[in-house]
Amino acid sequence: MNETINLLMNHRSIRKFKDEKLTESQIKTIVEAGQAASTSSYYQAYSIIGVTDLNIKQQLREVSGQPYVEENGHLFVFCADLNRLAQSQDETTREQMKTNLESTEFFMMATIDATLAAQNCAVATESLGLGMCYLGSLRNDVNRVNDILNLPEYVVPLFGMAVGVPEEKPERKPRFDWTTVYHENQYDITTAAEFHAFDKTVTDYYTHRATNGRDDQWSEQIKRKLTNPMRQDVGPFIQDKSLNRH
Amino acid sequence: MNETINLLMNHRSIRKFKDEKLTESQIKTIVEAGQAASTSSYYQAYSIIGVTDLNIKQQLREVSGQPYVEENGHLFVFCADLNRLAQSQDETTREQMKTNLESTEFFMMATIDATLAAQNCAVATESLGLGMCYLGSLRNDVNRVNDILNLPEYVVPLFGMAVGVPEEKPERKPRFDWTTVYHENQYDITTAAEFHAFDKTVTDYYTHRATNGRDDQWSEQIKRKLTNPMRQDVGPFIQDKSLNRH
Repeated sequence: MNETINLLMNHRSIRKFKDEKLTESQIKTIVEAGQAASTSSYYQAYSIIGVTDLNIKQQLREVSGQPYVEENGHLFVFCADLNRLAQSQDETTREQMKTNLESTEFFMMATIDATLAAQNCAVATESLGLGMCYLGSLRNDVNRVNDILNLPEYVVPLFGMAVGVPEEKPERKPRFDWTTVYHENQYDITTAAEFHAFDKTVTDYYTHRATNGRDDQWSEQIKRKLTNPMRQDVGPFIQDKSLNRH
Repeated sequence: MNETINLLMNHRSIRKFKDEKLTESQIKTIVEAGQAASTSSYYQAYSIIGVTDLNIKQQLREVSGQPYVEENGHLFVFCADLNRLAQSQDETTREQMKTNLESTEFFMMATIDATLAAQNCAVATESLGLGMCYLGSLRNDVNRVNDILNLPEYVVPLFGMAVGVPEEKPERKPRFDWTTVYHENQYDITTAAEFHAFDKTVTDYYTHRATNGRDDQWSEQIKRKLTNPMRQDVGPFIQDKSLNRH
């Protein structure tokens, strides 16, 4: 196992950081590592917003409800961005591009582009000895995040990433056995035995972990979360931004 | 600059591979590195299909039109997968989960989960001295890919990844200056000067690269591609799979 694979395998999300800001040079390295990821058809259809303004951070913390959105070494927000593609052309051409810009295909593509870049940023961050945590919780109120960050047409926030010097060392959270997510040649429906095995793994993890030990199962978590409709405003918001319309 | 950042910065897509198959152990390492990435709310909402059957590979090559979909050391197809979440519950619960499963929020979330895993797989692949290339071209005919891989409800193919021992060493493709994709506190519209600067960079790259030199600009590429409506069947296909409906 090489150094990089060792780093990837040892990922854990960090939610408590020392009060130590990232340097400009660290931020540049992380962003450029993100940019080095593959990008669909050379579009680079994403933007990354670094949040340093304390007032903006506090507002974003209110959206997410998580203290580490405010208390960290740096906060990134990753956006799917088709505005840059539109902006690169004159008005006539922009009009001719609308069918693509407003399609589900292009929305997916921009979401994928942003996420490829983000994961490279995550890996770069950890390789620098820093910790990070994704913040899907910014989608608790996409309209508010949109207003706070002043996002134009064709740009939507996907998730944040809190980065900093770790002040905790949580255990590694188990995953499905690799054969459950990996299929050969054809899709196989996950079996009851696979769910039981993973529930047992997760129960052991929650019972034995050093802090916040509890009695829980993966499938029970899924039931609690998914039977409760959430973030139903995300779909209409994205269409209001002229994306994902057909 | 550490070893991992050096690896990330030196990424280039490989489209020509030696005729040498990946070992089972390499495949397992790559998939497990993918699984180690962050996952929204512990959902792990993706599946990876490894394609070894020559007949299936040939059909996927027809969809993409790219020889390296068939000629590689291994072929992965990454899917957004909410079927596993549904499958983990009884029928009554599944019914109560429908509002979430069919929402844009959950479709985005699964797309993000799959892409985080994929980029870790990409990094792991390159750290092993192998090369890789993403294949968005599988979305040229999503319905056909769906049938070939036997994908159930709530599962859609996002992109493929061809992996193998490189038989070419292309130059690194330039990216926007980091300040173009990175904004501080508020979104800034990309300026004409930024587009001009990048067009110049890209023209230099195309003029001077060792193979396939040509006269081209980034903004011209964007114009050619986006004024031509493409993959308009992706949106309806995804809704047919009971995803991204509202």
